[in-house]
Amino acid sequence: MVAGGISGKDGPATLHLRTVAPLARYHDVMSQQFLDESISVLTRTPATLNSLLRDLPEAWTRAREGPGTWSPYTVAGHLIHCEKADWMVRAAIILEHGASRPFDPFDREAQFREPPDRPLSDLLDEFASLRRQNLARLRALDLQPFQLELQGTHPEFGPVTLRQLLATWTAHDLGHILQVTRVMARRYKEDVGPWAAYLSVMQ
Amino acid sequence: MVAGGISGKDGPATLHLRTVAPLARYHDVMSQQFLDESISVLTRTPATLNSLLRDLPEAWTRAREGPGTWSPYTVAGHLIHCEKADWMVRAAIILEHGASRPFDPFDREAQFREPPDRPLSDLLDEFASLRRQNLARLRALDLQPFQLELQGTHPEFGPVTLRQLLATWTAHDLGHILQVTRVMARRYKEDVGPWAAYLSVMQ
Repeated sequence: MVAGGISGKDGPATLHLRTVAPLARYHDVMSQQFLDESISVLTRTPATLNSLLRDLPEAWTRAREGPGTWSPYTVAGHLIHCEKADWMVRAAIILEHGASRPFDPFDREAQFREPPDRPLSDLLDEFASLRRQNLARLRALDLQPFQLELQGTHPEFGPVTLRQLLATWTAHDLGHILQVTRVMARRYKEDVGPWAAYLSVMQ
Repeated sequence: MVAGGISGKDGPATLHLRTVAPLARYHDVMSQQFLDESISVLTRTPATLNSLLRDLPEAWTRAREGPGTWSPYTVAGHLIHCEKADWMVRAAIILEHGASRPFDPFDREAQFREPPDRPLSDLLDEFASLRRQNLARLRALDLQPFQLELQGTHPEFGPVTLRQLLATWTAHDLGHILQVTRVMARRYKEDVGPWAAYLSVMQ
């Protein structure tokens, strides 16, 4: 309350409305904008990976930065597993149970238990299909600003909000496109010769 | 020559054919494969940027990591300028003049002299069109393996080969897609909350 000590015809309640209600509306607009912007990125990722990777020679799609590191193919498998077991699953836990029920731990290596000879085009198709379904679910929730602030419990680092989960989903997509292009670019580290010193991706 | 000390019906010349000719053929196959693989990436970049950026809110496409850094919009302008003044222009200089005529210096900041209010969709269209033309020119050259080893002179660091130039064109594409996704992801550095520690793109 900012109205303490002010008197006159407008009592504290009126002042409260004048100062806090516009802020609340601003917060609502920003929340809607955050949701729209996140969804605009999440919607594009399957097409981006498709443009970048589909029908590309395996020398690119199976390239790695060294033993134990991930290829573009591995990333595609990981993204599928995230659609199945991470983002919307955890969003549902927050909405249904709040902070009282921690998320199940997520296995970052699950894709290595899938058959390694499945064509990448199948993986890209499955990822696109799962993403479409998950975004349809997200839109159907018609999340209100107060819901974005609802808390969940991460098994490792504790309290998180639904808003943070959705922001992470978005940044995680971008981070993995980044990873795919880095792995591919570094395949040419020797081939670019003296230009390597001028390409920050090679450092 | 690996034939020293070996005698018999097959003289050194025959052995030379047996050992060196397959190596030369191997080199030819590898050169063709290098060209095909590079072109497979170069062909995809306009569609990848299109999927990632077209019709995205400006909050994403004009995002920067700080003053003086590049937004996705800036990157699109830079890629256009590269199509006009860098890759195929320099390839032509190598093929016509070899190392005797250094490349003209390239202006990495040229995009900042363009009108800043041109829609990103126009930039993406122009980039796609220029890239299509340049790849048609590259294919029409029907480069032979020996030509990939031809030398040019970079104004800053001296001798480079046509092969290195083409590899750099490819890695440069990937490096800028990486940059676009990094700039976008970091926009959510605060929004992801405690997840920032687990997203390497935020470091």
